[in-house]
Amino acid sequence: MKPETSNQACKRQTNEDGCSLILNQLPDTYIMKRILIIGGGFAGLKAAKILARSKRVSITLIDKKNHHLFQPLLYQVATAGLSPAEIAMPIRSIFSKYKNIKVLHGTVTSLDLNKQEAYTDFGMLYYDYLILACGAQHTYFGHEEWEEYAPGLKTLEQAIEIRRRILTAFEQAERTDNVEAQRSLLTFIVVGGGPTGVELAGAIGEMSRYTLSTDFRNIDPTLTRVMLLEAGHRILLSFSEKQASTATRDLEGLGVQVWTSSPVTHIDKDGVAIGKERIRASTVLWAAGVQAVDINSSLGVELDHQGRILVEPDLSIKGHHNAFVAGDQACFLHQTGECLPGLSPVALQQGKFLANNLLREIKRQKRLSFHYRNRGQMATIGRSRAIVEIDGFRIEGFWAWLTWLFVHIYFLIGFNNRILVFIKWASSYLTYSKGARLITNKGWRFY
Amino acid sequence: MKPETSNQACKRQTNEDGCSLILNQLPDTYIMKRILIIGGGFAGLKAAKILARSKRVSITLIDKKNHHLFQPLLYQVATAGLSPAEIAMPIRSIFSKYKNIKVLHGTVTSLDLNKQEAYTDFGMLYYDYLILACGAQHTYFGHEEWEEYAPGLKTLEQAIEIRRRILTAFEQAERTDNVEAQRSLLTFIVVGGGPTGVELAGAIGEMSRYTLSTDFRNIDPTLTRVMLLEAGHRILLSFSEKQASTATRDLEGLGVQVWTSSPVTHIDKDGVAIGKERIRASTVLWAAGVQAVDINSSLGVELDHQGRILVEPDLSIKGHHNAFVAGDQACFLHQTGECLPGLSPVALQQGKFLANNLLREIKRQKRLSFHYRNRGQMATIGRSRAIVEIDGFRIEGFWAWLTWLFVHIYFLIGFNNRILVFIKWASSYLTYSKGARLITNKGWRFY
Repeated sequence: MKPETSNQACKRQTNEDGCSLILNQLPDTYIMKRILIIGGGFAGLKAAKILARSKRVSITLIDKKNHHLFQPLLYQVATAGLSPAEIAMPIRSIFSKYKNIKVLHGTVTSLDLNKQEAYTDFGMLYYDYLILACGAQHTYFGHEEWEEYAPGLKTLEQAIEIRRRILTAFEQAERTDNVEAQRSLLTFIVVGGGPTGVELAGAIGEMSRYTLSTDFRNIDPTLTRVMLLEAGHRILLSFSEKQASTATRDLEGLGVQVWTSSPVTHIDKDGVAIGKERIRASTVLWAAGVQAVDINSSLGVELDHQGRILVEPDLSIKGHHNAFVAGDQACFLHQTGECLPGLSPVALQQGKFLANNLLREIKRQKRLSFHYRNRGQMATIGRSRAIVEIDGFRIEGFWAWLTWLFVHIYFLIGFNNRILVFIKWASSYLTYSKGARLITNKGWRFY
Repeated sequence: MKPETSNQACKRQTNEDGCSLILNQLPDTYIMKRILIIGGGFAGLKAAKILARSKRVSITLIDKKNHHLFQPLLYQVATAGLSPAEIAMPIRSIFSKYKNIKVLHGTVTSLDLNKQEAYTDFGMLYYDYLILACGAQHTYFGHEEWEEYAPGLKTLEQAIEIRRRILTAFEQAERTDNVEAQRSLLTFIVVGGGPTGVELAGAIGEMSRYTLSTDFRNIDPTLTRVMLLEAGHRILLSFSEKQASTATRDLEGLGVQVWTSSPVTHIDKDGVAIGKERIRASTVLWAAGVQAVDINSSLGVELDHQGRILVEPDLSIKGHHNAFVAGDQACFLHQTGECLPGLSPVALQQGKFLANNLLREIKRQKRLSFHYRNRGQMATIGRSRAIVEIDGFRIEGFWAWLTWLFVHIYFLIGFNNRILVFIKWASSYLTYSKGARLITNKGWRFY
């Protein structure tokens, strides 16, 4: 199957012999460029939306999920604050009105950059331009066997699994009178002190202190141990030292114990080891390492040490003028000599830049180079606390939290989702409750 | 572990020798009765709420799920209209303020009605009074192998699986150019013309006609075949003939083909057989048969032909004065000589009756007999159509649908859920969209 609209049946054959002659006689405006976008994350979505405005492109967007995921709020699904559907939007429905975008739900298994072909689980796709925006995946630094005991947080499925584990631990603690088992069940360890780890640990702390406080008879959820383990000398390395220590204080206020300089050396079903220390915990969550997706290494192109594709100033792949990479999958070298971080603003800016650059090229204008504008960063720490850094300004506490809240609602996709999330947050703030405390099992074939 | 509050440590020993003497000397009001409720559905929840008002009972409610499920709206989760959390409420949070109710998340594996003991996956529970309210389960009439190809709709997990299958079928049809494969992928068969089957088929029809109509490029979702197969001579047997034919007309308006007198004789991955006829369909859903839960047959008590426990006029089990059954698990013989149907009003009334009767008994008053008051029934057929029968009045069409809507919102548990569901319905009515079109995979360990 080929990703083309019917009026393209001929153009496809430019590679063959058939109608290339006719094509060369057509005026420029008639030649549709087939753009293949792999990945419906922030970068892919942004690029597709802008490209769709042109009548001279036909876009195919393929993703292995049927939904775009608003990753920054995924930790709230994992901690029962939001429902999956509130932070995920069917990609197909986002582009319902853009007739020149075809959305496909499938997996790209390999790519041939020279032949300009993508191989999927259901057939082959040709392209004139390729935008790779597949994101990143977790790494356990060579200890992939840890994943079973310490799931990461990248997909809705993982978030639901983490929610299941957290809530089940409280349920099991309520059922037992064995004090040692209870202590292990009521210990939650988050590995990794970046923004995700901090937000996750803060939300678990908040849940145990407030949401669950009166729901149990046999245990006291407020005595839950939440531990945030960071290998480095402090948490939130990308923030200033002062803001990181504010965050640490806020976390401690929610009962989260922050352990820095504590590299985890082993994880199993009983808990974690930090060198010779051993902590028993039935729930361990992984927010530590990120690496590139597997497909990168199969392309035969230059990668950085994390496996990301090193891109040219116009985000194209060296030697492949019509293939671009955006978002977490790319390593764009900044002035500092480091890659741009895997954050949503980077992905959004790159997606926008790519689309505009392609539209320029189609109009026979010269390509531009990408420049990242760092607008800032933010992280929230449980109930009504956050740290925010915008254009050099730093704020903390309640006002930072309000800023965080409105920025996230603003960038959320879908009018309904914004309203629903706002109502849930307002209600959760006023009542201390969490709306999505569901334990759903893994299988469906039981009664 | 024993389901008792600390002030009961002594009372438990009435069966032994220890402190029965002391107990006999205590005034009545000091004797706490231990009530064990198995199942947090409509019946169990209602009973627990009323019983909790008394200071002379200590209640343990055990359920294998952590949430109460509002079953009447489960088909909306299966058809992407609502999110799971909007129709499910953690049982624990419902009873957060009732200090004499202990909620346990676990499975009762067997019961000893004589010894008054329940065995669970985490220990044994004693009781003075038992309320069995475990509901019902699907039956495939001896063809349990059909379940894999035709999931039923009783749990959230099953609803999510059905949603996955329906949405995936559209996605796969979009990806292929094989016309025969497309026809099979775009055929949805619902087996069973009761209210669940009708609501499910209507919602799929509505989704294909309205929600998805502009989202695909390769297929036309409005050409989807939705078939409702019923073995009997008409659908909705519990409704009047006139209302059933209104429903049939409404279903046909949504593109649903209603086949009556069509008993399914075989189901496999390719579709279904009705005698010698064969229909190819990649999605088959089961809404046909219901039978009692497995535990009933292990109790050594009298059952009806569906395996439900035959109960006395006070809902107790014959020969077990302190064990009661309510809801779908019970067969309460009506004046008509038939069991009361497995509907939520029956379960609610029985739960309420049981709780009040037990409170009477504890106050040394005589037990009463249960009388069912049939207030009516209702079913909805897609967008703005329903049939309603209340206290003898019959209405149809838009006003019936509004009635259906407000009755369901009224009975939904949780203030937030009511608001969220109302907003979703209003928005879905105005925009023809569905908010929860997520395909979530079965496993979580992938990237």
